[in-house]
Parts: sequence; structure tokens; C-alpha cells
Amino acid sequence: MAPVVGKLAIIGQGLIGSSITRAVYERKLARETVITDGSAKVRKRLLELGLGEAKVVHSAREAAQDADLVIGCVPVRSLASVVAEIAPSLKPGAILSDVGSVKAGVVAECRPHVPAGVHFVPAHPLAGTEFSGPDAGLPRLFVNRWCILTPPQGVADPAVATLRAFWEGLGSRVEIMSPERHDRALAITSHVPHLAAFSIFHTGLAQEEKDRSPVMQFSAGAFKDFTRVASSNPEMWRDICLMNREAILETLRNFTADMEACARAIEAGDGETLETLFSVSRSTRRKVIEKEHISVQDDKSATELKDTLFRPYASDD
Amino acid sequence: MAPVVGKLAIIGQGLIGSSITRAVYERKLARETVITDGSAKVRKRLLELGLGEAKVVHSAREAAQDADLVIGCVPVRSLASVVAEIAPSLKPGAILSDVGSVKAGVVAECRPHVPAGVHFVPAHPLAGTEFSGPDAGLPRLFVNRWCILTPPQGVADPAVATLRAFWEGLGSRVEIMSPERHDRALAITSHVPHLAAFSIFHTGLAQEEKDRSPVMQFSAGAFKDFTRVASSNPEMWRDICLMNREAILETLRNFTADMEACARAIEAGDGETLETLFSVSRSTRRKVIEKEHISVQDDKSATELKDTLFRPYASDD
Repeated sequence: MAPVVGKLAIIGQGLIGSSITRAVYERKLARETVITDGSAKVRKRLLELGLGEAKVVHSAREAAQDADLVIGCVPVRSLASVVAEIAPSLKPGAILSDVGSVKAGVVAECRPHVPAGVHFVPAHPLAGTEFSGPDAGLPRLFVNRWCILTPPQGVADPAVATLRAFWEGLGSRVEIMSPERHDRALAITSHVPHLAAFSIFHTGLAQEEKDRSPVMQFSAGAFKDFTRVASSNPEMWRDICLMNREAILETLRNFTADMEACARAIEAGDGETLETLFSVSRSTRRKVIEKEHISVQDDKSATELKDTLFRPYASDD
Repeated sequence: MAPVVGKLAIIGQGLIGSSITRAVYERKLARETVITDGSAKVRKRLLELGLGEAKVVHSAREAAQDADLVIGCVPVRSLASVVAEIAPSLKPGAILSDVGSVKAGVVAECRPHVPAGVHFVPAHPLAGTEFSGPDAGLPRLFVNRWCILTPPQGVADPAVATLRAFWEGLGSRVEIMSPERHDRALAITSHVPHLAAFSIFHTGLAQEEKDRSPVMQFSAGAFKDFTRVASSNPEMWRDICLMNREAILETLRNFTADMEACARAIEAGDGETLETLFSVSRSTRRKVIEKEHISVQDDKSATELKDTLFRPYASDD
């Protein structure tokens, strides 16, 4: 089978960038891969690591030269400046993408810098670990994970199809939606849960201090992960909060109101309300599991199901 | 090696009870095991399952007869009535224990029913899955998990030592603390995080309804577990909320305040405060990992460390 991509450029070789580099090599998805990173220390480390057959170059502009697909794997707040930097070396027909956790604001910042004839198709692979840097990358990081594409209206279908094939080649399940819908979805499924994890951790530390008794070590099960989450990259989470401000604040307000309803029921000793609250979660979770089951077991049914559930991007707000 | 226990009685054969039954058989921790459950349907299922060599009997009182160790594996709100029921058949010198997620209130409810000469040593294994019932039990559920013992003041040391040996035999790491300290610790490490998970799930469902767009399926990583948690047993969580009311409400108040501080920083676009907030979590999490590492690698150091950090129960309020 021919590689999905001719020349691939990956700018930024942290956890996600270096995972793509490793996976592309294992799965032979590109004829040629050129990588770089803004940090000289990271570039030096890349040469030591020798990731597949990827060629390490000194600048983003050099990497992007003649590339068919350029993926910016840099913090969301740096993406626009990277796009501005590489714009002169992007060839007509090239696909430009990213891996950022926030879309609407970033897309708006980048678009003015994208040259005519270049297809801008932002992407967000829902995958990660709490580790960072080029040593942390894993070639199977994206297998069975969602990758959400948020092509702006008017972008050429074949460019979207190529990027979809690329991510499916990395083992991901691909979904397409608008940047705004993505940001609202991520606020509730990822950003606010992360903020809750950070806050639980802080509340726990304050309690340890007050009681002079270490307790966080007794986290078990899912809440071991909860504290694991609290050790994610601080700069990345700062930027996510600042770039997805509106959706996060709205979701936080709703979440706080739901928590307060819960507190009121506990305060009132209202067992019936509490049980109802907890039962709804359980029954709905079952439905979610069933849906996932379908989407893994039977791709056709899953697509049909999704077609009835998702409004396509074109008809969006 | 001789079994830790002569005759063991396990009352209640849900997830935890049937896991103990399976583990005790695999690890030969008791000379004889007698099990029962309040539900006739469950008792019938136990006979079909044939858990090890455990003998299934019809009543709690029959199970407790002549037992050296009796473990009540029933919902926290039912424990006192089970203790009252079996009291007449408990032999002098027997150890009575439980596996409940809440301690202070339950201990206070049960103590008046415990006959003189019976050693009451409540326990809480920090282990579980989102499944329930006798089919859900796993023989390795307690391996490398904490089990917290909360012996009331005045209970005989050898009884505590026997129960410790029993749980260590099941593969657990055992910690001893007061019921009150346990309840405060669990409020922050388990109860409030669970309430946060339930609430996130509710907030997400409301958003799906409003946007007519399913998004919860895009939960990834730790927050897949987050939604998994939301499908835990509703009755159990209702009872935990009602029985650990004060500690949960205090922790909820602190948690909500921490979340609001976070929201204010986002609203103000205060990146510096956010980064500090997220950095503290990361550095402290590292310390927690190091501590755990010590306690696994080197039991002596861990014990010394804990001795300096934990106030012993005797001096506890």
C-alpha cells in the first residue's frame, strides 16, 4: 500500500509530536518525515533518539518546505506564530493541521496567516499521558482513540479525506465537527473534569495541612487517576483555560450548580433525591457503553447511529 | 502455614463479600468458611457458583455461630441490624468486622449491640469495581490495595493483629486510624470525588440535551473512569452521603471554594495564578508518588515515615 502522505513535517516533538513521529514510522504512513522543535535541547535529543527515519532540521520553516502535510504540535498559544513563520514556505495544495486541545480561538488566530491554496484542517487527537517531552512519545498512543477534525467551512473535501485517512492510519476513530462544538464538548468531557481534579487535589492538600495527616495516598481506583491528572503539564492547562474561556466558564457554572444541588440534598438528608441522582448517571452510562459497543463492533451501524445524532458541520449554528 | 482464621463467617455476598470468599479459598486463609446473604436469590446463586469450599447457610445468625471471625459485608445502613441479629450467636473471643465505606456513625450504631467479650474491629478495604452481586467478585480485588482498620479505643491488640494478618493475607496494605480520621480522609479521597463525577455526568447530560449533540462519548483517559464511576451502585452512594454527612459537606464547601477561585482566575484571564495552581498539584503529586514508591520498595522506611506523619489513634480526638 502506498503511504497516505508524501512529505510529512511535524513541528514540535513533545509527547504528541514524537508519538506521531514514532507511529508514522511504524505504520509507514509517509514517504518522508521531517521533524523539528523550537528547543535546541530537544533537537539534540531527537538526534540521539533517532526516531525512525525522521530527518531533524533546525527550523519550522525548513521543515515545512515542500511538505504535503504539516502538523503543528506546539502549545495552543504558540500555534499562530508558528503558522505565520512557516507561511512563506508552504506549497500550494499542502494540508496544514495541528493537535491542539482548543479549536475556535486558535483557528481564528491562525487563519489570517494561512496562504491561499493551503488547506487548513485543525485536528485534536483525544490522547495523552501525564508525561511530556520527546522521550515520552508512544507509537500506539492514538490506537482506538478519537481524533476530532474541525475543518473550517469551505475547506476542500479531499484535504479532509486525506487527514482522516492519516489519523485512521494511526489507529484512531475520526469524528468531524465545528470548532465551537468541539470546544463545548471538550469543556465538559475534559477541561472541567481536569479543573475538578486539580481542585480536589488542592482541597486535599489543605486538609492534610489542617489535620496534619497525609490522606491523599488513600486515593483508590479511578481517583488514583484523578490525582495523576493533577500532575499534567501546568503551562498547557493554563493555555487551555485561557483559550477556551467562555465554554469552560459556562460549564463550570453548570457543574457548580449541580454540585450545590447535591450538597443541599445531603444537608437535608434527602435520600430519595440522592438515589435518583445517582441512578440517572448509572442508567445513562449504560446507554453510553452500549453505543460505544456498537461503534467498536459494527462500524456501519455506528456511522448510521452517528448520522442521526450529529448535525453535520455545514448546518451548524 | 496454618490458616489465619479457624471458622470464618461472611455475611453478605455482593462484590466485596464474594471477593473475600474467593480470595480466602485461593489463599487458604481460613480452616472453614460459612457464607450467607439476606437475599434468597443470591443464596441460590451462591450454590450454583460453588465459591471454593464455602458452606452456604440460610441466616446470618446461623453463619455467625461459633465463628472466630465474622465479617459483615452489607450496606452501611444495614450493618447495625445485622449485628443486633447475630449478637446472641457470637462466641466470646470472636472478632467482628465489616467492610463499610463510612466508619464513625456506623461504629456508634453497632457498638451497643456488640456482646461483652466480642472484639469489634471495623475495617474498610479501599477496593471495588462498578459491578455488584456475587458474580462480580474477584479473588485478587484486594491485592496491593489499602485496608484501613478503625478499632475503637480499648479493643484487644491481638484481635487487631489477627485482622491485620487476615487482610495482609488477602494481599492488602493495612493502615490503622480512628473512625473520624477515616471518614475525613475518605470524604476527600473518595466521597467528594465520586460526587464530582456524578455531577460532571449530570452537567454533561444536560448539555447534550441542550445542544442536541452527544458528547460524553468523547471522554478520554482518566475521564473514561470518571464516567465509569458515575455508574456505581446508587443505594450505596446514597447511604455513604447520609452516613458521612458532616465530613462530606465540609469537604464539598472547601472544594466548591477552590473551584470558584479557579473560575475567577479564568474569568480574569489570570494566567499566572492558573499556572501556579496547576504547578502545585504537579510538584505535590510527585512527592506522593515518591512516598508510595518508598512504601512499596522499602517497608521499614515507609513505616518510619508514617510513624512521623500519623498521630496514633490513642492520642486522637
